[in-house]
Amino acid sequence: MANTRSRLKKPADKSVVAYTVSLPYDKRLCKYDIAGSIAHANMLAKQGIITDQDAESITWGLASIREEMEKGKLSFKDEQEDIHMAIEARLIEKIGEIGGKLHTARSRNDQVALDLRLFIKEVISETVASVKKLQLALIDLADANKDVVIPGYTHLQSAQPVLLAHHLLAYYEMFVRDTSRFWDCHKRTDVMPLGSGALSGVGYKVDREFLARELGFSQVSQNSLDAVSDRDFILEFEAAASICMMHLSRLAEELVIWSSAEFGFIEIDGAFATSSSIMPQKKNPDVAELARGKTGRVYGNLMALLTTMKALPLAYNRDMQEDKQGLFDTVDVLSSTLEVFTGMVKTLKVKPKNVARSVQLGYILATDMADYLVKKGETFRSAHEIVAKLVNYAEEKGKTFEQLKASEFKQFSPLFNKDVSSITIKSSLASRDSTGGTAPGQVAKALSAARKALT
Amino acid sequence: MANTRSRLKKPADKSVVAYTVSLPYDKRLCKYDIAGSIAHANMLAKQGIITDQDAESITWGLASIREEMEKGKLSFKDEQEDIHMAIEARLIEKIGEIGGKLHTARSRNDQVALDLRLFIKEVISETVASVKKLQLALIDLADANKDVVIPGYTHLQSAQPVLLAHHLLAYYEMFVRDTSRFWDCHKRTDVMPLGSGALSGVGYKVDREFLARELGFSQVSQNSLDAVSDRDFILEFEAAASICMMHLSRLAEELVIWSSAEFGFIEIDGAFATSSSIMPQKKNPDVAELARGKTGRVYGNLMALLTTMKALPLAYNRDMQEDKQGLFDTVDVLSSTLEVFTGMVKTLKVKPKNVARSVQLGYILATDMADYLVKKGETFRSAHEIVAKLVNYAEEKGKTFEQLKASEFKQFSPLFNKDVSSITIKSSLASRDSTGGTAPGQVAKALSAARKALT
Amino acid sequence: MANTRSRLKKPADKSVVAYTVSLPYDKRLCKYDIAGSIAHANMLAKQGIITDQDAESITWGLASIREEMEKGKLSFKDEQEDIHMAIEARLIEKIGEIGGKLHTARSRNDQVALDLRLFIKEVISETVASVKKLQLALIDLADANKDVVIPGYTHLQSAQPVLLAHHLLAYYEMFVRDTSRFWDCHKRTDVMPLGSGALSGVGYKVDREFLARELGFSQVSQNSLDAVSDRDFILEFEAAASICMMHLSRLAEELVIWSSAEFGFIEIDGAFATSSSIMPQKKNPDVAELARGKTGRVYGNLMALLTTMKALPLAYNRDMQEDKQGLFDTVDVLSSTLEVFTGMVKTLKVKPKNVARSVQLGYILATDMADYLVKKGETFRSAHEIVAKLVNYAEEKGKTFEQLKASEFKQFSPLFNKDVSSITIKSSLASRDSTGGTAPGQVAKALSAARKALT
Amino acid sequence: MANTRSRLKKPADKSVVAYTVSLPYDKRLCKYDIAGSIAHANMLAKQGIITDQDAESITWGLASIREEMEKGKLSFKDEQEDIHMAIEARLIEKIGEIGGKLHTARSRNDQVALDLRLFIKEVISETVASVKKLQLALIDLADANKDVVIPGYTHLQSAQPVLLAHHLLAYYEMFVRDTSRFWDCHKRTDVMPLGSGALSGVGYKVDREFLARELGFSQVSQNSLDAVSDRDFILEFEAAASICMMHLSRLAEELVIWSSAEFGFIEIDGAFATSSSIMPQKKNPDVAELARGKTGRVYGNLMALLTTMKALPLAYNRDMQEDKQGLFDTVDVLSSTLEVFTGMVKTLKVKPKNVARSVQLGYILATDMADYLVKKGETFRSAHEIVAKLVNYAEEKGKTFEQLKASEFKQFSPLFNKDVSSITIKSSLASRDSTGGTAPGQVAKALSAARKALT
Repeated sequence: MANTRSRLKKPADKSVVAYTVSLPYDKRLCKYDIAGSIAHANMLAKQGIITDQDAESITWGLASIREEMEKGKLSFKDEQEDIHMAIEARLIEKIGEIGGKLHTARSRNDQVALDLRLFIKEVISETVASVKKLQLALIDLADANKDVVIPGYTHLQSAQPVLLAHHLLAYYEMFVRDTSRFWDCHKRTDVMPLGSGALSGVGYKVDREFLARELGFSQVSQNSLDAVSDRDFILEFEAAASICMMHLSRLAEELVIWSSAEFGFIEIDGAFATSSSIMPQKKNPDVAELARGKTGRVYGNLMALLTTMKALPLAYNRDMQEDKQGLFDTVDVLSSTLEVFTGMVKTLKVKPKNVARSVQLGYILATDMADYLVKKGETFRSAHEIVAKLVNYAEEKGKTFEQLKASEFKQFSPLFNKDVSSITIKSSLASRDSTGGTAPGQVAKALSAARKALT
Repeated sequence: MANTRSRLKKPADKSVVAYTVSLPYDKRLCKYDIAGSIAHANMLAKQGIITDQDAESITWGLASIREEMEKGKLSFKDEQEDIHMAIEARLIEKIGEIGGKLHTARSRNDQVALDLRLFIKEVISETVASVKKLQLALIDLADANKDVVIPGYTHLQSAQPVLLAHHLLAYYEMFVRDTSRFWDCHKRTDVMPLGSGALSGVGYKVDREFLARELGFSQVSQNSLDAVSDRDFILEFEAAASICMMHLSRLAEELVIWSSAEFGFIEIDGAFATSSSIMPQKKNPDVAELARGKTGRVYGNLMALLTTMKALPLAYNRDMQEDKQGLFDTVDVLSSTLEVFTGMVKTLKVKPKNVARSVQLGYILATDMADYLVKKGETFRSAHEIVAKLVNYAEEKGKTFEQLKASEFKQFSPLFNKDVSSITIKSSLASRDSTGGTAPGQVAKALSAARKALT
Repeated sequence: MANTRSRLKKPADKSVVAYTVSLPYDKRLCKYDIAGSIAHANMLAKQGIITDQDAESITWGLASIREEMEKGKLSFKDEQEDIHMAIEARLIEKIGEIGGKLHTARSRNDQVALDLRLFIKEVISETVASVKKLQLALIDLADANKDVVIPGYTHLQSAQPVLLAHHLLAYYEMFVRDTSRFWDCHKRTDVMPLGSGALSGVGYKVDREFLARELGFSQVSQNSLDAVSDRDFILEFEAAASICMMHLSRLAEELVIWSSAEFGFIEIDGAFATSSSIMPQKKNPDVAELARGKTGRVYGNLMALLTTMKALPLAYNRDMQEDKQGLFDTVDVLSSTLEVFTGMVKTLKVKPKNVARSVQLGYILATDMADYLVKKGETFRSAHEIVAKLVNYAEEKGKTFEQLKASEFKQFSPLFNKDVSSITIKSSLASRDSTGGTAPGQVAKALSAARKALT
Repeated sequence: MANTRSRLKKPADKSVVAYTVSLPYDKRLCKYDIAGSIAHANMLAKQGIITDQDAESITWGLASIREEMEKGKLSFKDEQEDIHMAIEARLIEKIGEIGGKLHTARSRNDQVALDLRLFIKEVISETVASVKKLQLALIDLADANKDVVIPGYTHLQSAQPVLLAHHLLAYYEMFVRDTSRFWDCHKRTDVMPLGSGALSGVGYKVDREFLARELGFSQVSQNSLDAVSDRDFILEFEAAASICMMHLSRLAEELVIWSSAEFGFIEIDGAFATSSSIMPQKKNPDVAELARGKTGRVYGNLMALLTTMKALPLAYNRDMQEDKQGLFDTVDVLSSTLEVFTGMVKTLKVKPKNVARSVQLGYILATDMADYLVKKGETFRSAHEIVAKLVNYAEEKGKTFEQLKASEFKQFSPLFNKDVSSITIKSSLASRDSTGGTAPGQVAKALSAARKALT
């Protein structure tokens, strides 16, 4: 096989080989690289740049390499720098020097751009499917606990009662946005770069639209310099993944807090919990914690590539090889987190007794008390102050609102009447009855809309 | 005015006031806050929650505060914690206790979400307009230098000749994607959160669709817990801004390199250059450098908010107040960078002589030589090796390709013929003649398409 | 005054002025800049580069500018680009063209490096003092609750009992490391850069050691190119600050969790808590939340400067102007957080009853049970398994360890004897009796060592 | 072997196993884990917690596992979660249930803290050695090109002439600081955590000082809760590594720019350059580019762990498992970059002709011209303006300073005399003659001081 290093007159230093090689990780792009090469060979033949016979040899060779790969039998020699050269070398082993024609009218620069775009398009489809599974698990959990009321929190302090189902649907909404972001990224990834060559286009009459059709792209890139030096689609994927992991980290935090003995809202199934090497009583929510921790990694990968891309002159620079490991890591973290969360959510047990106890803590109906006064004519601002003082009073007396007498209420405002006792958790929930509110009817509607949207 | 701190029985410690106050920066949201409050008051009246008279008072008061603001006459007292309380306090000063009714059926949690969404929607429109101006300046520069050929670089090494216009259009393409990303973010920002209350919805019969119409939103939020704790739209804006700044940093890097005496491709206009306090000869590309440097800041703001949002339990937590300063900084950096780049690009002078000298450096037509051999029947891989050796030979002899004799060519391949002399910069350019290539025809087409898309 | 822009033949574009100006924030360096200039003028005179008379004029002028500054009477004209030019211009206003001699043998490049180093040296001293105050507050709180036992957590699950004092001392240790990191940074900041000029040194016989002495530096920089382009000391400060904020964010998280109704371990004083605009019952730990949130900002500032400095060629580049705003922000966030935490910790109330209730939850003595078996001859690994099964059994029966009968213990291991009842919270604590353990004696020792170290 | 999951009653879900397993990467800590365990077993025996016989068995078993590891014969079963459990399981395979005694009086929490500290201490020693090699290579290159003058740049514009040796020594200084930072980190890493148990210390009479001595630590940790949840030393290492990579990225940027045909200052040796798959003439500085790109990754790892550690309550949380992969990656990137840069610098060729040509570009002696006027009595500020106008004049005439006639100089200032011709590159260099300046004598002194410091 021809030596691509002739220009340099000597082999690369051993340390350079180790430093520059990407095969150990970019082999993950193998199937996309082969798909791209098959389409490229067919295009070359169609355009008369190589003969049909050559194309047949080449595509046969590539198909058989793919088969080796699928059977786990493909292994590459150590001297190969990257997946592109490794496949070309294997092809030449198989079909002889004719394999050297494959690299006509292309460069590794447009080739790797293609591979990455094919990869991400597939990843996005898979991610969206995984997100859906988790959304479904959340909806199922919500449905199974339709009547459970939990304290809604702000600042981790009891705020107002909400349905657990309502709370879970908040995550459903976050994931709806994630999905939408991933598809928007897909739109900008779905651009076929082959034909851009090293940077200026190629000196052959290529048919780029044919390549786009063959490879399932809806458009071709419009500027060759941009096409080989654009990594926006990776950054955008990593940004969307970061936001998605942020959502998962919030859910994770709640699962950890809810699993504490003090909250005791839920029990994570044994199959999704872990034990301690030293403390025999432990049942730890490690999965949730790891997800929370891995969020840092996904952020770090985004920051890494943003930094790498900063201030690179056009067009391709080798710095850009550093796009892959972070991307692969982000893909793996995100997909495994979505999978394991789906299982964990599916098997989660809610402990209604503990939840009910927590709803009683704090003066969770204070806002409703204020609203009560407003409806009797007080301005909201004064009503707020009156109820604040009432809470202080009740707290000092060690009483709940229910335990206060009518006369005690009256001390704070003459507007308080007997009907103050009609303010209950139930009435509070029922009153939040506009779109997006926690009233049972609204939540039921939201639940069924969500389920419908997923199918 | 009623004291919202009654519950706490004592005033905040001085250090706490200083630590928690957001008025010094969130006053930037003033006009959005007023717009939201006017719509809210109108809705309350429409729904019979307050009287029409009260609503009139309130909206009159708010309008007059807006007028004060527009005239630069609005100043707030130091004890105000944030823009929401500051406006409410000013309103009560103006119209009396009735102003206390405005906060009925809402919370600062949904209010600030509204303000931020109104702000970002406006920012996106402005940003997209600024991007367009810069795109136009690039196209004008391209048009004015239609025939200038520069060395296309990879690894900052001469690679293949390209038209300067083609190079500039690469940036045009990046900005097309930026615009598209900003609009996608707009789509997810265009969601009306009022009516979510503190977290669970509100205990009044509000008309959220009315609010959405009044405030120019195309939809209302679907889950109250999510609505008050969602900052995705800020993160997404900051991610899109980071990618856009990355593009600008690449252009900046090129302007810096091209301004060096050694490259000498361009001259930055005196009005866009800076001098030195000590070295009298200096004419420095500080604007480009600052843009490159500020890229770090925009990345940092993104990273900051991602970190802040990590692992926050639902719903609102005070951590989220930290969303604003980074956002405002990103908005300011991005808009000022776009503006100053537009001016700088508009006044840029290309130095064709220096550019032409650089095109002669290196063996920039080597790929064309290899393609020549391929067209005569060589495989690309062998052709590549042959030309590599030819380059080594020419370099040793201190000759350019043009200075080599036919016989010298022949030493490397019998396929070399007299017609090798037809390989020129011009022929090289002309040959890159498919969509996105640097052939003059393609570039002209791309230029006019770009211009059309901008108008 | 001479025009430094003569070389550029025209004034800067308005957008450029706005984009490049640093005076609005670098005026914070005013006092350091003046101190440096006074020392510089004295040195110039001492070396005979300017006359003593000129030096006297200049230092008089500078001292009077400093006085204006201290009295809040110093204001700069808008056309000034940065604090260095602003002070020079004011000086020339005061003492005439002679002021133009001050910039002899220096450049803004070494001048700003000096200012920043003086600033950070002072900031470090102040930071360390603030950290000490917080450490003292923690120790006082520990002392005041010497006997309080809390559940030690891993994974937010009860793990083993610990003294609250022990827990608080963990933070003391973190802050010890922070202090040590800040001092190490101080060591590398304490290097005098003046005399490096623009980049190559200066063409005058300057006395750099004199300058170092005058300005309180222990050494002079060893390479002029490095001296003007080194920002390591800022990065190192920001990294140390990030780690310190991380510690504060952990403490913040615990205060938030401990303040929840479900945990109820502590009560944050009213002066350090905040209320809600809508929910009258709320008493929110906003200070802790804001600190947690601001952690993101401090991280972001570090990331920003790392990115900015990446791949800058030597020596000074304008990108480096972007070092200041992030630094100032980090300094302000860190110092205000330390201050407000000190106040909050000082006024914190521990609720022993709630804590005691939590210690009873879970099977917190399970490790002690296993250790008991080990001491009777079981391997630790088997003992662990035996106790795990015992816990499952007790949990099913709804019993605590104390409620189990001897016969029930025996079912799990014949090694269980009557003396199993001697395993108590107290015995558990007492047994952790080596350096760093939670045994009361160890903790008392650690407390008094800590107090001693702080004085 | 005993089942540590008895408490959970069921095996972990397959997705959980995959998600939580750390063995694939933490096996890198194998040798440190074994060293720690041997010391631990010896301590247990010394303290009479296990018998001498048991300790002998255990240490024999561990030593033989280490031997397997060294011979590459150690392989672990898939069901093992981490290196600690894997080694324990292998030990029990070898020596039977007695192996179960090893985990007495310790937890994986203090064990992994130990392993990481041992690892980083070793890494720091190696890193410092690698930094020294690179420093030496830079000094050798400086020495070999002692007389080469290059343009010193600010803003990538010619500023003042400097010796290449001076420029290279700037990097030497950066690496001096890096080394000092790594040693400061070492100081805080050199703390022995064993004996902290899971979080509260251990219920056995352990001898922690013995462990410290055996394992080469200079102190023991002072608080058990802190000891198991402290990852400062990793963050600090990653911060120091980030700054070091930033320095390398600056050198990388310069090598890339200097390798461009336009600058042409250096030639990277063929063994350290790479070729193109399509452009036969290419000789690319990929090593420098990759280093520049990998800087992003090292920053990303720092950001990842900072994010992961944010707001974790005490003590150990599983999030912290995410400390390892980023750390290992940072270690590998840094060490390989240092190695490959050392080789690249060693074989670098400077091209004196091109450098000399660049020194002639621009009006690099303008500062010296201004200093000339100052020495004749002009204030620096006026001198600066006079020379700026002179430069503009010369530029318009297309002349260098040398080509200007005395009368032309006189037009700009009467102070210009014949002796203006004595201002030369040589005189400019010679005049920068204080510590850290580029005068040949200073540079020679700095070079020899540097060489001495390295040996």
